[in-house]
Amino acid sequence: MRQGKQTFVYQHAPVVASHASIVGPKEGEGPLASEFDEILPDDLLGQKSWELAESEMLRRCILRAAEDGGITLEQAQALFSGDLNNQIIATGFAARALGIPFFGLYGACSTFVEALVLGSALISGGFLENALCSASSHFCTAERQFRLPLEMGTQRPPSAHWTATAAGCALLKSCGDSSEKLLRVTAGTFGKIEDYQIKDANHMGAAMAPAVCSTICAHFEDMRIDPDHYDLVATGDLGWIGREILLELLRQNGHPIPPEKLVDCGASLYYQEQDTHAGGSGCGCVASVGCSWIMKRLERGEIHRALLVGSGAMLSPTSTLQAQSIPGIAYAAALEVF
Amino acid sequence: MRQGKQTFVYQHAPVVASHASIVGPKEGEGPLASEFDEILPDDLLGQKSWELAESEMLRRCILRAAEDGGITLEQAQALFSGDLNNQIIATGFAARALGIPFFGLYGACSTFVEALVLGSALISGGFLENALCSASSHFCTAERQFRLPLEMGTQRPPSAHWTATAAGCALLKSCGDSSEKLLRVTAGTFGKIEDYQIKDANHMGAAMAPAVCSTICAHFEDMRIDPDHYDLVATGDLGWIGREILLELLRQNGHPIPPEKLVDCGASLYYQEQDTHAGGSGCGCVASVGCSWIMKRLERGEIHRALLVGSGAMLSPTSTLQAQSIPGIAYAAALEVF
Repeated sequence: MRQGKQTFVYQHAPVVASHASIVGPKEGEGPLASEFDEILPDDLLGQKSWELAESEMLRRCILRAAEDGGITLEQAQALFSGDLNNQIIATGFAARALGIPFFGLYGACSTFVEALVLGSALISGGFLENALCSASSHFCTAERQFRLPLEMGTQRPPSAHWTATAAGCALLKSCGDSSEKLLRVTAGTFGKIEDYQIKDANHMGAAMAPAVCSTICAHFEDMRIDPDHYDLVATGDLGWIGREILLELLRQNGHPIPPEKLVDCGASLYYQEQDTHAGGSGCGCVASVGCSWIMKRLERGEIHRALLVGSGAMLSPTSTLQAQSIPGIAYAAALEVF
Repeated sequence: MRQGKQTFVYQHAPVVASHASIVGPKEGEGPLASEFDEILPDDLLGQKSWELAESEMLRRCILRAAEDGGITLEQAQALFSGDLNNQIIATGFAARALGIPFFGLYGACSTFVEALVLGSALISGGFLENALCSASSHFCTAERQFRLPLEMGTQRPPSAHWTATAAGCALLKSCGDSSEKLLRVTAGTFGKIEDYQIKDANHMGAAMAPAVCSTICAHFEDMRIDPDHYDLVATGDLGWIGREILLELLRQNGHPIPPEKLVDCGASLYYQEQDTHAGGSGCGCVASVGCSWIMKRLERGEIHRALLVGSGAMLSPTSTLQAQSIPGIAYAAALEVF
């Protein structure tokens, strides 16, 4: 059912039956290395192009989540997925290889949480018994598409993000009659576009923070709860700079979150010495960190309730060339163990 | 509820409360001219770029559907939409201007029907009371992004499609207790990627026909019905050539559709003398024809049940340059008056 303006409450809260994460070599040298299921030895996976490598990484990740969750590809009822490539080709090719009926999504870096929100609704509503929700990104495909050829070795400004080479996938299943303590998706909030007129495509944290603030505030208001309800709020890829902006925006909007409760997946993915500047970004950032560290902390009992918030910058190189500002969007999914 | 492998049956079938269509000048000279709500006098709508013009066309179309359906933008609960532009910027900017909570989709030219399938599920499942489902395309944005600069005046092969400058939007509402005879979405079938190894980006009908065949067959099998159930099956943008291929594929797969029952929106949008070669394509093709001619024929009582099938070619210029074949996908929505 819908509660408030923008929130779905899942009365038959789907279970996160399994989750899988695969990251690239650089991400495998970061502080979360031990949390990931697979660290790739190189960026190409034996493929002929970075785009095919990203698709192969996503395919493996979805397959792993399905296998770990005890279903065959034939039993997988639907895949909700997307990526940053033009026309989401990494996902299209992965869906082709896997043969799972498929809903293509585009929410930029928010895509994984958009998938969780929609997949959970369709399971809770009795339309599906299981759904694979995933997203991917790849540093090299994103650089050449959104920025400049890697071969140029362009210097990046301090506010720039590093697109994570990463994929994450969660297998959701209908709750059945289980009385076991399990990780579940209990609510999902979908966002409005927010645009504070940021035009610098190397300042994504600032472009996306207003949308994240808007969705988090909508979530608290729709659910009539405050930040105390959650042990952790995990944003997708605001990075070091965007996280500070978000903390300030939340204070201004009357929903302050204590800084120790707010982690950002992009700011957590790399050591600052790894020279990623503002932190990680890309669809795979919140997907891989959400499907590893965040979900594992919930399963290990370190935390009991978390709000996972994915944010996307809905720009394209064309809109940047046309001097348009960067619209942001965010989706939030409440994860609870009970 | 889910029926069979890939079909949602909407037990609380949403009502199509209103539908709006806007097309460009060339589409306004075609055989369906009198069916559209608005024919644009030019391709730019006073905007500075074709991309902004496409976004403005989509914004107007969504606004018109909302107004005609008797809701304010504030009352609109969710927008399901997408387009062909990289990172769906036409939709992102329209959603920014409208301020409606937003789910970004990418199913290439199938996006409108993907939106109908998802939006109907969320309404039938009790998550939403209304949903705006839309999509757009623009000849000039598509040509410069997918093919060559218009200024080059490149000659097009006979199998090439003409991307429609068009937008369509349907406002779905929960059925309530109405006993009136109304147009409703009763079922939706979601597709698998099908790829018959077509590599010619100027032969989209051939690339997409297998996916359309697969989704139509899945629909008939899941629903345990045959083509007699429908007065009309309307495909999205297979064009003259793809339509012939589909008829043959359906015969081969044991679900023949009588040719007189199968119309293709892309093949119906232009007169053959308009030099569009294989016919129309683009997200806006099935969206605008679906939201005008098809839905109006149902409302006028000329037909009672139609299956609207959107198909998408999940390629990008990058995948074409990398010599990849073209994956196709299709979604189907059953429209009935009762």
